Amino acid sequence: MNRRVILASRPTGVAQAENFAIIDAPHEPLAPGQIRVRNRFLSVEPALRGWIADQVIYSAPVAIGSVMRALAVGDIIESQAEGWAVGETLCGWFGWQDEATVTPDAVLRRVAETDLSPSLALGVLGINGVTAYLALTGIGQPKAGEIVVVSTAAGGVGSAVGQIAALLGCRTVGIAGGPGKVAQCLDEFGYDAAIDYQSAGALGPALAAACPDGIDIYYDNTSGAISDAVFPMLNIGARVVICGTASIAQWDPWPQGPRVERHLLVKRARIQGFVVFDHLHAWTMAVDRLAQWVREGKLRYREDILEGLESCPDALAGLYRGENRGKRIIRI
Amino acid sequence: MNRRVILASRPTGVAQAENFAIIDAPHEPLAPGQIRVRNRFLSVEPALRGWIADQVIYSAPVAIGSVMRALAVGDIIESQAEGWAVGETLCGWFGWQDEATVTPDAVLRRVAETDLSPSLALGVLGINGVTAYLALTGIGQPKAGEIVVVSTAAGGVGSAVGQIAALLGCRTVGIAGGPGKVAQCLDEFGYDAAIDYQSAGALGPALAAACPDGIDIYYDNTSGAISDAVFPMLNIGARVVICGTASIAQWDPWPQGPRVERHLLVKRARIQGFVVFDHLHAWTMAVDRLAQWVREGKLRYREDILEGLESCPDALAGLYRGENRGKRIIRI
Repeated sequence: MNRRVILASRPTGVAQAENFAIIDAPHEPLAPGQIRVRNRFLSVEPALRGWIADQVIYSAPVAIGSVMRALAVGDIIESQAEGWAVGETLCGWFGWQDEATVTPDAVLRRVAETDLSPSLALGVLGINGVTAYLALTGIGQPKAGEIVVVSTAAGGVGSAVGQIAALLGCRTVGIAGGPGKVAQCLDEFGYDAAIDYQSAGALGPALAAACPDGIDIYYDNTSGAISDAVFPMLNIGARVVICGTASIAQWDPWPQGPRVERHLLVKRARIQGFVVFDHLHAWTMAVDRLAQWVREGKLRYREDILEGLESCPDALAGLYRGENRGKRIIRI
Repeated sequence: MNRRVILASRPTGVAQAENFAIIDAPHEPLAPGQIRVRNRFLSVEPALRGWIADQVIYSAPVAIGSVMRALAVGDIIESQAEGWAVGETLCGWFGWQDEATVTPDAVLRRVAETDLSPSLALGVLGINGVTAYLALTGIGQPKAGEIVVVSTAAGGVGSAVGQIAALLGCRTVGIAGGPGKVAQCLDEFGYDAAIDYQSAGALGPALAAACPDGIDIYYDNTSGAISDAVFPMLNIGARVVICGTASIAQWDPWPQGPRVERHLLVKRARIQGFVVFDHLHAWTMAVDRLAQWVREGKLRYREDILEGLESCPDALAGLYRGENRGKRIIRI
C-alpha cells in the first residue's frame, strides 16, 4: 500500500492538522510513459497555503480528497519511460506520499549532486536557493561594493540572498525579527549588519545607521513597514526585487502605504516582481553554482527535518506558528 | 545690450510674473573657448518650477539675480571655440535671454534637421519627444500587439508616447482630462481609445471596457487615482514607466495609496523611473528617429508659441493655469 496525505477539507486561513488525512491507497499500475518514485524527503513551505486556498493565484487549487501537492525528492523504483532509469534521484512534484506514479513532466530536475544530501534539493538547492540566486542576479544585478538590504534576512530565501550578495562583493544588511534571528544573520549567514525590526523602534534611523551610503538593492520578502523604511533610502539607479509580501496578512481590504512613484522617479529606480517557476530554463545552471558554493563551505543553510509521513498534517500549521529554524522538510 | 529675464525673488509655489524681471545687460566679452548664441526660441516647461524651487531635486536652484535657466534654440553669432562655426544652429542651456555667452558644454545638441522648424528642438524633437521615445522603448519595451495605456495622453510627452507606441504596432489607450483633450487624443494623436478621467465616474470600469485584454505597458505621467485604477489591470510581465507625478500636488505629507507590491509579484511586473538627462548619449539617435516620423507626417505635435522676451515672466504661471494647448515656446 501507498500511504498518502490528502486534503480532507478546505481550510479558512492556514491549513491545520485536521484539514488533512492519511490514507492507504493501493499501488497504481504503471502505464507506459510513467515512472514510480519512492519519496525520501517531502517539502513543507509557506506557498502550500496558497496551493490549498480557494482563490489560487499561480495554479489550480488542490482538490478535496487529492494528495497534497508538494515538491519532494526520491528515487525511481520502476520506469516505463525512456531515458528515466531505476535508481536515479529526482526532484519533482511528487506530493506528500510514500510513492508517486507520474509522467516525467512532474520532474523539476534530476538531482546530479550525489555528493550532497538530496534534501538540499528542497532548500538551498531548491526553490529557496534558486529564487535567491536568480532574482538577486537577474533583477538585482549586484555589482561589487553595492549595498544590499534583505528583509526576512534569516529565512530560507533571505539567508541565501545575503550570502550570495556577499560572495558577489556586496555589503549586506539584513532585517529580521527578534534577537535570535539577528544573531543568526551575523554569526551564521555573514551579514555585515543586521537590524531587529521588532526592537529597532523607528526602523528608519536604524537603517540609516547601517546604510550611511544608501541602498543599491533591496531584496524584499515582506512589503509593509519594512519596505516603507527602505524606499526613501534607495540610491540613484537602485533595484528592488519583490519576492514576497510576508508582512501583509490579507489583501482584502487592500492595504495602503506611502506612494512609491516619487522615489522611483527621483532615484530612477526599478521594482520588479519575481516568481521562480517562470525561470525553469535557468534552474540547473543556478543549482550548479549554488552547489559549488555549498561544497566550498561558502553558502550555509539550515534544515528543520521532521520524521515520518505522520508529521505532514501539522507541518504547515507549525511553519505558520514559527516553530521551524530552517527549511522544513519531512524525511520518510 | 543683451536683454535677460532674471529671477528677481524666490516664489513659494509656482513662479508668477512678479518673481521675474527683465534687465538690460552689457555684452560680455567672448573668452577663448566660448561661443555666443543668438537665441531664436526659448522653452517654457513645468520642470522650470523645480529649477527655481529652494529644494531642488536634480540640479542646483537658479540663484536670485541670475538669468532664468531654460533650454533654447539659437544660432552661433561669434565663436572662439574650435569646431563651433558661426551660423550653426544649436539647442542648449542658453537661458531666457537674447544672447548667451557660453562654453560648448552648455550645448545639448547641434540642430541638424534644417528642413524642420528649429522650435521643434524644444518639443517633439526635444525633451518631450526624446523622453517619450527613450522611456517607452527602453523601459516599456513595446512589442507589436501589446496594449499601452498613457496618462496625460494629450500632453507633450503623452501625445508622443501614444503615437510612437502605435507606430511600433501597439494598441493605445489614452487617459486625459476633459472632452477637449479626449477628442484631441482620438482625432489628432491616433489613440485607439481615450478615457476622460474627469467624467468617467469610476475609472476602473471605463479602463476595463477599453482594455478587455488587460494592460501590457503603462506610461505614467500622473501617479494618483489614475495609476490606482491601472495597476490591478496589468498583465503578466507588464512594464510601468514612471515619467511624472502630475496628479500629486505635494509630497509633504507624503501621500498614501494602495500598495503595489502584490500586483508586481503576481504579475511579475516591473516599474521604473525615467529622467531623460540620464540618457544624453542616446539623444541624437532618438531625435533622428523622431524627425523622420515628423517628416513622414506620422508624428503629430502641437506648439503654443508666445511672441517676445517680454512674454517670459508670465509664461510659466500661464502653463500652470492650463492656458496652453501644446508645447509652450517663446519666439524672440
